Amino acid sequence: MQEILTLDEIERLATRVLLANGCDKANADALTRNIVAAERDGSKSHGLFRLPGYVASLRSEKVNGAADPLARRVSAAHVEVDGDGGFAPVALERGIPLLADAAEEQGVAAMTIRDTYHFAALWPETEALTERNLAAIACVNYAAVVAPFGGRQPLFGTNPISFAWPRPGKDPVVFDMATAAMAQGEIQVAARDGDEVPIGTGLDRDGNETTDPGEVLSGVQLPFGGHKGSAIALMVELLAAGATGEFFSTEAAADIGDGGPPRGGEFVIALSPERLAGKAWVERCERFFASFLDVDGARLPGAGRHRLRAQSGGRMVSSIVLEQIRKLSP
Amino acid sequence: MQEILTLDEIERLATRVLLANGCDKANADALTRNIVAAERDGSKSHGLFRLPGYVASLRSEKVNGAADPLARRVSAAHVEVDGDGGFAPVALERGIPLLADAAEEQGVAAMTIRDTYHFAALWPETEALTERNLAAIACVNYAAVVAPFGGRQPLFGTNPISFAWPRPGKDPVVFDMATAAMAQGEIQVAARDGDEVPIGTGLDRDGNETTDPGEVLSGVQLPFGGHKGSAIALMVELLAAGATGEFFSTEAAADIGDGGPPRGGEFVIALSPERLAGKAWVERCERFFASFLDVDGARLPGAGRHRLRAQSGGRMVSSIVLEQIRKLSP
Repeated sequence: MQEILTLDEIERLATRVLLANGCDKANADALTRNIVAAERDGSKSHGLFRLPGYVASLRSEKVNGAADPLARRVSAAHVEVDGDGGFAPVALERGIPLLADAAEEQGVAAMTIRDTYHFAALWPETEALTERNLAAIACVNYAAVVAPFGGRQPLFGTNPISFAWPRPGKDPVVFDMATAAMAQGEIQVAARDGDEVPIGTGLDRDGNETTDPGEVLSGVQLPFGGHKGSAIALMVELLAAGATGEFFSTEAAADIGDGGPPRGGEFVIALSPERLAGKAWVERCERFFASFLDVDGARLPGAGRHRLRAQSGGRMVSSIVLEQIRKLSP
Repeated sequence: MQEILTLDEIERLATRVLLANGCDKANADALTRNIVAAERDGSKSHGLFRLPGYVASLRSEKVNGAADPLARRVSAAHVEVDGDGGFAPVALERGIPLLADAAEEQGVAAMTIRDTYHFAALWPETEALTERNLAAIACVNYAAVVAPFGGRQPLFGTNPISFAWPRPGKDPVVFDMATAAMAQGEIQVAARDGDEVPIGTGLDRDGNETTDPGEVLSGVQLPFGGHKGSAIALMVELLAAGATGEFFSTEAAADIGDGGPPRGGEFVIALSPERLAGKAWVERCERFFASFLDVDGARLPGAGRHRLRAQSGGRMVSSIVLEQIRKLSP
């Protein structure tokens, strides 16, 4: 069962619930913008679906709903953000303008975010950087639920990586994907809806292959793409935790008993194609994208989400999700 | 058939052949170090196997065997290298010390290399940066031979990405992999040796799946890991070409008639975990690596290559390769 809500209704609902559960206005607004953007773009597993988790970790007081993050440029090319124990969106809103300034000046810059809780998609931050004509890479890790290739014990988080490339005057190219074969949110949605998941998604508690999403959630997930995907998952882990000084997925595992996200870091790189490659970059890249679009059957990453974004009118939201959420505020 | 050659014999053979075919001493030495390192580490498809290709593009005069690359630090965090139309190793030797200086100072830095021909593995450059306790990512593209996910026409090169993470006092963690399901060199080796390749490696000229490496080489290769691997291949393409201002794989395709590599760019990022994450980074990361090594059946990337490196004595080299090479110099 689904209901249709306008984006305004989604915004009011999320804001009300967050304010009623310990968020101050700045944090509620930043989280709500994130949730509305996800629903707007059809990114279901990062929209209202996440709200009960946000609320759970506000109620358990693990996460600071009144976080006042501090972003500082500590070198010409490095921005450091102390998240003040809050959710990531406010920390990102403080850090991204400084990161963009640094990348515009130097050609490349990195942002390390600490003491924060990331429970959202990563494309909002990489796509925000493309609005300044910058390319971006973002990585986070998560409580250990994914076995490295060849193993059966959890070591990595689902460890998403997002990459975005600017196309002035056009929608950017953006991907945002778990390095697990399937994002945990998607497995949760499959479990909720009684759907199967493909072989290769994960193993059950005894290390056997299974198509039952519930068995995978109580067993271990697998990385995408065999040993190569596992290598990418390792890179994300080392960037998100090793390069930020925050928890590795193995250390974060104890931190999710309340149903919310674990504390962790985020690592973002921003690049200026104009500074690095010169003025002709747009024309050169657009020629390449034209070749890409000439390939029958191939799609530029992000195109589906941007098509959904352009749709006017309301968005379908699961009635089960809405029922849960409406209980969370007076 | 195989012969055993000592590393000294491999070095003398490669040097002699390169000097006899238009390399000056600096270029011959840099290429030879690269080839010897590949044979030493069991990285067969980047060792002596590549020498006929190097020679072909020296003889066709496409590549400048006396290249004198210029490396300049153009911002606090950006090193630009003009390769002077030569092979990549000399350009890398000039650029890496400047890149390492920049990353040590700023926490992150990028190097863009132009007007060069990359025909080797990428781990020599990422691993070199770990010797300065830096992490590194390197990307190159190549003549278009790989279809994006869903398509059947070549658009990407085999687009390798290498990532290395330093472990002071220990072998670094290093991966270096084609984002194609299989590296082209490995498919060439399979074709030479009459072996099959797995389904998913590529399609024949008519777009059908095949296990015949020859059919794949005259058809199209596929990315690893479905749409997620294809997204990584796209990221590599945009970093290697879009961020350097060099040829995209589609533009480079005309450039390989002589059997050598096409002209292209290389993009390298170096990161200082100490600057970004603070002094405790080694201890924190080593705790994570200990957890990794506790997972039955999992292996840290690069471990196999470092084990082979540690072996004393000679290395097995294909007699077919040696026969070809020995014809290339008096």
